[in-house]
Amino acid sequence: SGKLWGGRFVGSIDPIMEKFNSSISYDQRMWEADIQGSKAYSKGLENAGLLTKAELEKILHGLDKVAEEWDKGTFALNPHDEDIHTANERRLKELIGEAAGKLHTGRSRNDQVVTDLRLWMRKSCSTLSAHLKMLITTMVERAEAEKDVLFPGYTHLQRAQPIRWSHWILSHAVALARDLERLLEVRRRVDVLPLGSGAIAGNPLGVDRKLLQKELNFSAITLNSMDATSERDFVAEFLFWASLCMTHLSKMAEDLIIYGTKEFSFVQLSDAYSTGSSLMPQKKNPDSLELIRSKAGRVFGREDKEAVFEVSDTMNSVLQVATGMISTMKINKACMENALSPDMLATDLAYYLVRKGMPFRQAHEASGKAVFMAETKQLSLSQLPVKELQSISPLFSGDVCQVWNYANSVEQYKALGGTAKSSVEWQIQQLRELLQRHQE
Amino acid sequence: SGKLWGGRFVGSIDPIMEKFNSSISYDQRMWEADIQGSKAYSKGLENAGLLTKAELEKILHGLDKVAEEWDKGTFALNPHDEDIHTANERRLKELIGEAAGKLHTGRSRNDQVVTDLRLWMRKSCSTLSAHLKMLITTMVERAEAEKDVLFPGYTHLQRAQPIRWSHWILSHAVALARDLERLLEVRRRVDVLPLGSGAIAGNPLGVDRKLLQKELNFSAITLNSMDATSERDFVAEFLFWASLCMTHLSKMAEDLIIYGTKEFSFVQLSDAYSTGSSLMPQKKNPDSLELIRSKAGRVFGREDKEAVFEVSDTMNSVLQVATGMISTMKINKACMENALSPDMLATDLAYYLVRKGMPFRQAHEASGKAVFMAETKQLSLSQLPVKELQSISPLFSGDVCQVWNYANSVEQYKALGGTAKSSVEWQIQQLRELLQRHQE
Amino acid sequence: SGKLWGGRFVGSIDPIMEKFNSSISYDQRMWEADIQGSKAYSKGLENAGLLTKAELEKILHGLDKVAEEWDKGTFALNPHDEDIHTANERRLKELIGEAAGKLHTGRSRNDQVVTDLRLWMRKSCSTLSAHLKMLITTMVERAEAEKDVLFPGYTHLQRAQPIRWSHWILSHAVALARDLERLLEVRRRVDVLPLGSGAIAGNPLGVDRKLLQKELNFSAITLNSMDATSERDFVAEFLFWASLCMTHLSKMAEDLIIYGTKEFSFVQLSDAYSTGSSLMPQKKNPDSLELIRSKAGRVFGREDKEAVFEVSDTMNSVLQVATGMISTMKINKACMENALSPDMLATDLAYYLVRKGMPFRQAHEASGKAVFMAETKQLSLSQLPVKELQSISPLFSGDVCQVWNYANSVEQYKALGGTAKSSVEWQIQQLRELLQRHQE
Amino acid sequence: SGKLWGGRFVGSIDPIMEKFNSSISYDQRMWEADIQGSKAYSKGLENAGLLTKAELEKILHGLDKVAEEWDKGTFALNPHDEDIHTANERRLKELIGEAAGKLHTGRSRNDQVVTDLRLWMRKSCSTLSAHLKMLITTMVERAEAEKDVLFPGYTHLQRAQPIRWSHWILSHAVALARDLERLLEVRRRVDVLPLGSGAIAGNPLGVDRKLLQKELNFSAITLNSMDATSERDFVAEFLFWASLCMTHLSKMAEDLIIYGTKEFSFVQLSDAYSTGSSLMPQKKNPDSLELIRSKAGRVFGREDKEAVFEVSDTMNSVLQVATGMISTMKINKACMENALSPDMLATDLAYYLVRKGMPFRQAHEASGKAVFMAETKQLSLSQLPVKELQSISPLFSGDVCQVWNYANSVEQYKALGGTAKSSVEWQIQQLRELLQRHQE
Repeated sequence: SGKLWGGRFVGSIDPIMEKFNSSISYDQRMWEADIQGSKAYSKGLENAGLLTKAELEKILHGLDKVAEEWDKGTFALNPHDEDIHTANERRLKELIGEAAGKLHTGRSRNDQVVTDLRLWMRKSCSTLSAHLKMLITTMVERAEAEKDVLFPGYTHLQRAQPIRWSHWILSHAVALARDLERLLEVRRRVDVLPLGSGAIAGNPLGVDRKLLQKELNFSAITLNSMDATSERDFVAEFLFWASLCMTHLSKMAEDLIIYGTKEFSFVQLSDAYSTGSSLMPQKKNPDSLELIRSKAGRVFGREDKEAVFEVSDTMNSVLQVATGMISTMKINKACMENALSPDMLATDLAYYLVRKGMPFRQAHEASGKAVFMAETKQLSLSQLPVKELQSISPLFSGDVCQVWNYANSVEQYKALGGTAKSSVEWQIQQLRELLQRHQE
Repeated sequence: SGKLWGGRFVGSIDPIMEKFNSSISYDQRMWEADIQGSKAYSKGLENAGLLTKAELEKILHGLDKVAEEWDKGTFALNPHDEDIHTANERRLKELIGEAAGKLHTGRSRNDQVVTDLRLWMRKSCSTLSAHLKMLITTMVERAEAEKDVLFPGYTHLQRAQPIRWSHWILSHAVALARDLERLLEVRRRVDVLPLGSGAIAGNPLGVDRKLLQKELNFSAITLNSMDATSERDFVAEFLFWASLCMTHLSKMAEDLIIYGTKEFSFVQLSDAYSTGSSLMPQKKNPDSLELIRSKAGRVFGREDKEAVFEVSDTMNSVLQVATGMISTMKINKACMENALSPDMLATDLAYYLVRKGMPFRQAHEASGKAVFMAETKQLSLSQLPVKELQSISPLFSGDVCQVWNYANSVEQYKALGGTAKSSVEWQIQQLRELLQRHQE
Repeated sequence: SGKLWGGRFVGSIDPIMEKFNSSISYDQRMWEADIQGSKAYSKGLENAGLLTKAELEKILHGLDKVAEEWDKGTFALNPHDEDIHTANERRLKELIGEAAGKLHTGRSRNDQVVTDLRLWMRKSCSTLSAHLKMLITTMVERAEAEKDVLFPGYTHLQRAQPIRWSHWILSHAVALARDLERLLEVRRRVDVLPLGSGAIAGNPLGVDRKLLQKELNFSAITLNSMDATSERDFVAEFLFWASLCMTHLSKMAEDLIIYGTKEFSFVQLSDAYSTGSSLMPQKKNPDSLELIRSKAGRVFGREDKEAVFEVSDTMNSVLQVATGMISTMKINKACMENALSPDMLATDLAYYLVRKGMPFRQAHEASGKAVFMAETKQLSLSQLPVKELQSISPLFSGDVCQVWNYANSVEQYKALGGTAKSSVEWQIQQLRELLQRHQE
Repeated sequence: SGKLWGGRFVGSIDPIMEKFNSSISYDQRMWEADIQGSKAYSKGLENAGLLTKAELEKILHGLDKVAEEWDKGTFALNPHDEDIHTANERRLKELIGEAAGKLHTGRSRNDQVVTDLRLWMRKSCSTLSAHLKMLITTMVERAEAEKDVLFPGYTHLQRAQPIRWSHWILSHAVALARDLERLLEVRRRVDVLPLGSGAIAGNPLGVDRKLLQKELNFSAITLNSMDATSERDFVAEFLFWASLCMTHLSKMAEDLIIYGTKEFSFVQLSDAYSTGSSLMPQKKNPDSLELIRSKAGRVFGREDKEAVFEVSDTMNSVLQVATGMISTMKINKACMENALSPDMLATDLAYYLVRKGMPFRQAHEASGKAVFMAETKQLSLSQLPVKELQSISPLFSGDVCQVWNYANSVEQYKALGGTAKSSVEWQIQQLRELLQRHQE
C-alpha cells in the first residue's frame, strides 16, 4: 500500500477510522499554498545539496503541472488521498517518478500543514480586510451624505436623546474600524515562517530557513521548532477576530431589524436583501439582517482548522452582504423626525436649571418631577405651562420655551465624539484618515 | 421566477445573499423525512376535503417517484433549489403538474422544516443508541473476561490503590450507560409532532393533527403552534447529549493514551486503530484515541441544524471506532502488575492501625510517617523492619506483613460499587440488566 | 501543622498556592449537607463496628452543635480551613476531642464532597421547581384572563398574522413547562448516593451503603466507586437545564422589551420592575427584562462547582423576578388592536381562493399580487375594489369582504395548538393538568 | 428616597430585583479608579465654568477623604449603595453637602463605569505583564542552566526524537512571550479615554475632553460617544488574552503532570506546590499543576465585568504559582536519559540512507522495515546486525554504528529554532532581547 508509514504496519486500517482521519474534503482548498510551500522547500533542499539542479527543475516543473490540474479542475482525487499534502505528492510522483520521494526530506507533515495554513490565511486576511474597508467606506460616505437627519437615540430601547442618524452609523463604523486594525495585527502574526521545524527537533540537514522565508515572503521566522509545529495561536486569534467583528455586525443588524419594523418604520431594506414567506403573501422579511445575526453564532467557539475555512467564507459573505445592504437601504426621514418627542429633552430641561445654578442632582430631580406632572396631566412635556413648572422650581421662567428645539439640542454636543454637526464631521474625518493609512 | 414568494418581489436578489441563504448542501440528507412528511400531510389535506382522492393518489405516486430518484442517486438539483423542501416540491410539480401546488396548503416552511428534522433525528437517535449499546456490551464482556487482572488505580495520575482492570473498564461503562438512558430521553422529546402549526397561528383548514400523528407514528403532539415551529430544545438536548457522551469517551481515550505510552506499557492498540508518522519510521501513534479526544471539541457549543448532521456523523463514527478499538486492544498483564508498588498499600497500613483501635486521622498520620521513613531510608514501604514501625506506633507488630498483599487488599472493597471481585461481578450484572431493559 | 496529610510533608506550602486551592469562601454554603452526610456516615461506621454506640452518640451530638453554630452565625472560620469539610471536622474535634478523628475512617474527601454536593443540589432543584411552577401558573392564569385580546403575531419582527395575546403567553409557558419536566429529570439523577466509594477502590470496612442510602433518603446508589467520586454529569445537566431555561426566559424578555417600546406600546412594566437613568430624567428602563436577558450569558458554559451555586442563585432570582414582572405588567389593548392591519390577512385572502379551488401556490401568488397592487396604489389591502382583485383572478367576488375581519380570522385556527379560542383553552387545560401532575 | 431617578418613580422596587441589579459586592474594587475619574471630571467642570474654584477645591478635598476611608478600610457601605459610583457620591455628599450634586453634571453612569473600568484594567495589565515577565525570565534562565540535559521529545505521547530539556522549556517560553506581546497590545487598547461621552449624544456643556485625557494620562480618546459608552471590545480582548495564556500554561502543566508520574519520573515538584490525600497517606499530588489546568476552564467564555475581576485574580495567582513551581521543580537527569531508546533514532537511520543518495520516501520505508525487523526479533534497533540491515538495503554498511549516538543526533538540528546547542542558545538570546525590549 502507498501509506506514508508503509514499512511499519502489518494490520489494516479500520475503514471508518480511515475516513474519520481524512481531511481532504476541506483542506484541498489549500492546494495553491501547498504547491507554493513545496516549491520553496525544494529550493531549500537544492541549496543544502540534497537535490541536484536537475532534480530541482524536475520537481518544480512537476509541481507546476499539479497546480495547473487544480486550476483547471482536472485534478483527480483518489480514495486514499487523506489530505491535500499526500494528494499533491502522490500526483507529483505519478508525473515525475521517484525524484518526488526526495521532496519530503527533513520535512514533517506538521511542518507542511502549518506552513500551508499560514500561507492560506495570510491571503484570506488580505481579502477580508479589503471587504471590511469597503464596508466602512460605504458607511462613512453614507454618514457624510445624511448628516442633517435627526432621529431618536435609544438606550434600553427607550427613547433617550435626539441624535443625528449619521452619529448612529458612525457608532458602528468606529467599531468596525477597530476590527480592521485588529485584523491587520492578526495578519502580522500569521505572517511568520514555521517551515524547517521538522517533527519536533528541527531540521538536521542544513536547510537554510532564511532562504525559505525569503522565497515565501514571510516577515518573520518561528523561534522554536516544537512550538512552531504545534501552536495555533494565530488560528485562535483569527477566530476571535471574526467573533468580535460578527458581534459588531450583529448589533448593527439587530438595530436595523427593529428600525425596519412597521412600528418604527425608520428604514426599508432593498428587495435584494429581503425574502418572503412561503405561506404569508404580504411578508417581506429582513433576511440579510437575520442571517448576519445568526451567523454570529456559527463563528463563536470554533477551534479547528475546518473552522478557519468556514469562518473565512462566512466573513467573506457577511461583509459583502452588509455592504450591499447598507448601500441600498432607504431611510424614512419623516418617520424618524416624528419619533422625536419632547420628553427626550428632559435632560436639556435639567441643564436649563443647571445653567441657572442648580446642582445637577437637584436639577435631575426637578426635571423628573416635570415629566411626572406632564404624564399625570396627559400633556407633552413642552406643553406644561411655566406656572406649573415654577411650582417645581422658581428658577423656571419664560425662556424655558427655547429648550423645546431638537436641532438646537443636538448642536450642544460639540465635545469630541458627540452628535453636533462639527463633531460628526470630525469623526468622519478621523475614519477617512484611518482608511487612508491602511490603503495599500 | 419560481421563487415561492413570486408575486411580491420586484427587485432581484443579491447572489451572495442567495447563496448565503441556501441550505440544500446539507439539508438534502433529510430527503426521506421530507417525502414522508409530505405524504402524511397530503393525506391530512384529503381528509379535510382540500384534496380529492384522485389528487391525493397523484401526489402520493409523484412523491414516491421523487423518493426513488433520491434513492437511486438520479435526483438532479437545480441552482435555484434553496433547500430540500423546495427541491422536492419543484420536482413533484415537474412530474405531476399543477396539483403539486396544493400540497403546501396551510403548511408553512417552518412547519415542514421542523417536522422533517424531528423525523430525521428520531431515526438518528435509534441508530446511535444501537451503536452505544454495542460499545457498552463490548466493555462489559471485556470486564467479565479480564476481571482477575490487577493494576494501579491512579488519582491525579499518581499511583493510588491497587484495583481490578475490570473496575477501570466498568467505571467508563457506567458513564456510557447513563448516556444511553439520556439518549433515550432525548429521543422521547424528539418524538413529538409539530406538523399542523402553520406559520404561527396554527392550521385553519380543518387538518386533523391526530391523523398526522398516527400517519407519522409520533408519540405526542406539540401544544402551541408558535412554540412548535420555533423551539429547538430537542436540538440543544441532542447536542448536549453528544457533548457529554464525547466527554466520557474523551476521558477514556485520555487514560488509554497514557496507559499506551512506552513508560506505562499497560495497553497496546491494534494497528487498525493506529497510524504512523510521515517523518519518523518507528512511530505508531494512537490516532484513534486522539481523534476521539479532538472530536469532543467539535461537538461542544454547536447550535444549529447543520451541527445536528455533523454531530450525528461524528458520534456514529466515534462510537464504532471506540468499539473496534476496545475490542482489539491488547493488555500487558505483566506490566500492569509490575506497576503495583508497596506505597500503594499505605492506606491499608493505616487501616491496620484503625483495626487495632487507633482513630483514622492518627492512623493516617502514622502511615504517612512510615512512608516518609521508607523514602528517607531508600527502602520500599514493605521493607521497613517492624522495629522501625514500632518507633512510630507501638500498635505495629509482626502481623503487619499480612498487609503487603495486593490481591488481599483488593478483596477488601466488597461494598457495592467497589473493586472486590464480588462487587465487580455485581456491576457487570447491573449493566447487563440495563442493556437487557433497553433491548427492542 | 493540622494539614490532613500531616505526616508526609516536610516543605511548607506557597501561600498563594494555598489560597488558590481553598474553596471555603463558596462551599461553606453546603454546611448543612456536610453535617447531614457526616451524621449518616457515622451511623454507617457504628453499624460496621468501627464506632462504639457511645462514640456515635458523641459524634452525633458534636455535629449537632456544629450545625447550631452555623445556623446561629457563630461558627468561626479559621485561616487554615480550606473547605467546609475540613472546617466542620476541625470544629468537631475542638468540641469532642480525638473521637472526631474516627469519623473519616474509610471515607475520602472526594466521597464527601460529591455526597454533600448532591444533597445540596437536590434541595436546590426542589426550590427551583417550586418557583418555576409559580411562574407557569401565573402565566397560565393570565392567559386565561386575557384570552379575548387580539394582537399581531410577528415573524422576523414583521407583522405576520393576527393572534390572541394569550397564544403568545402560552407559547412561552409551554417552553417553561418543558423546562419543569427536565428539571425533575435532573433532580432524579442528582438523587443518587455516592457515599461509600472511598478514594477510588470502594469502601473496605464493611460499611453498608444501603443503610447510608436510607439514612440520606436517596432513591438510588452509584454503581462504580471510581465513577462515583469523579463524575459530575449531574452538574453538567443542571447547568444545561439552567441555560435552556434562561434561553426561554431571555426570548420572552426580548419580546417584552420590544413590545414595551414607545413605538409598539403593547405592554407597560410596573415601576417595581423598572429603573431610571442617572442622567436623563424621563427614562424608565425595562431593567428587569434586560437583567434576565443578560443573566443568560452568565449561565452558559460554566462548568465547575462554584458555578452551581452562582447559577442556582441566578435562577432563584430570575424566576421570582419574572413571576413578579409578569403578574404586574399592564397591557394596552387599544394599541394591540390598532396594530392589526389588513395586509396581515393576505394569507386569508389566499385561503379564500384555495376554498374556491385554486391550488395554494397559485393562490399565494395571486394574494401577493394584490398586496403589491395595494402598495402601488397606496391603499390598504382591504380597500382594493373587487374589480381590481378580479384583474388578478376571476375567482374573486363580492364575498371577499368577509375576509377582512380579524376575529373571524383568528377563529379559523381550531386545530390543536392553534390560536382559536377553543384551542387556546385546550392549551390552558393541558398546562393546568401538567402542573397538577407535578404538585407534591 | 435617595434613588438617582428620584423624581420619576412612584411605585417601589421589588427587593429581589434591587439585589439582582446591584454590583457593589464586586465593583467596589474600583474605588480608587472611581475617585481618580471623579477628580479629573470635576477639574473639567471647573475649566468649563460649571464649578467655581472653591467648589472644585471642596470636591477634590472631599474625594480625597473618601479615598482615605477606603484605604483605611473604614468606608461604611449602606444597603442602598447599588454600585461603587453611587456609594462614593453618597459619601461625598455626606462629607461636603449639596456641592456634591454638581459632580455628575453632564456625566452619565455609563460614562463613569467605563472610565473606571479602563483605569482599573490598565493597572491590572501592568501588574500581569510584570508577573508574566518574571515567569518567562525564570524559564529562560532555567533553560540556560540545563541546556546539556537530553530527554525524549514526544509526539502523540509516543517517544519521537531525542531533544534537549531546554528545548522543551523554551517551546513553552516562546508561547508565553507571544502572550506578553499580546497583553501589551490589549493594554494599548484599554488605554483610551471614554469620559465626556454622556449617555449617548456626547457632552453638551463645554467640557474639554483633551484636558480629561491629560489628567488621567490616557494615550488616546474615543471617537464616537455612542460607541464609547457601550463597547467592551477591550474586555473581550483581555478575556481572550487570558484564555490563550491559560491554554499555554495548561499545556505546560499537562506535560509536567505526565513527566511527574512514577512511570516517567522526569521531574519532581517541590512540596510547596504539592498536596496530599485525606485518605491515602503516601500520596503527593501535583495540585499546583492541576489547579493551573482547571483554572483554564474558569477563564474561557466569560463575558462580563465581574469576569474581569475574577480572571485578573486568577491570572495573578496562576502566573506567580507557575513561577514558583518552575523555579523549585527538580529534574531527574538519569531517568530522562534512560528514557532515550534506539528506536527514537529511526529518523536518523533514514537520513543515513538519504545521505547515501536514497530518496527520503524509500529511506523512510527502509527504516520502518528495520524497526519491524528489530521488534520481531525482540532486539533494540541498534542491535540489528549490519547483515540484516543489508537485507533491507545494500546501502547499509559498517558506518551505520555512528547513528546510535543521542548527543550527535541532537547536534544535527542546527537550523534556526532546532534543538542543537547553538540553536537553543540562539532562542535564549532572542527571548532575552525580547524581555529587554519590554523592560520599563
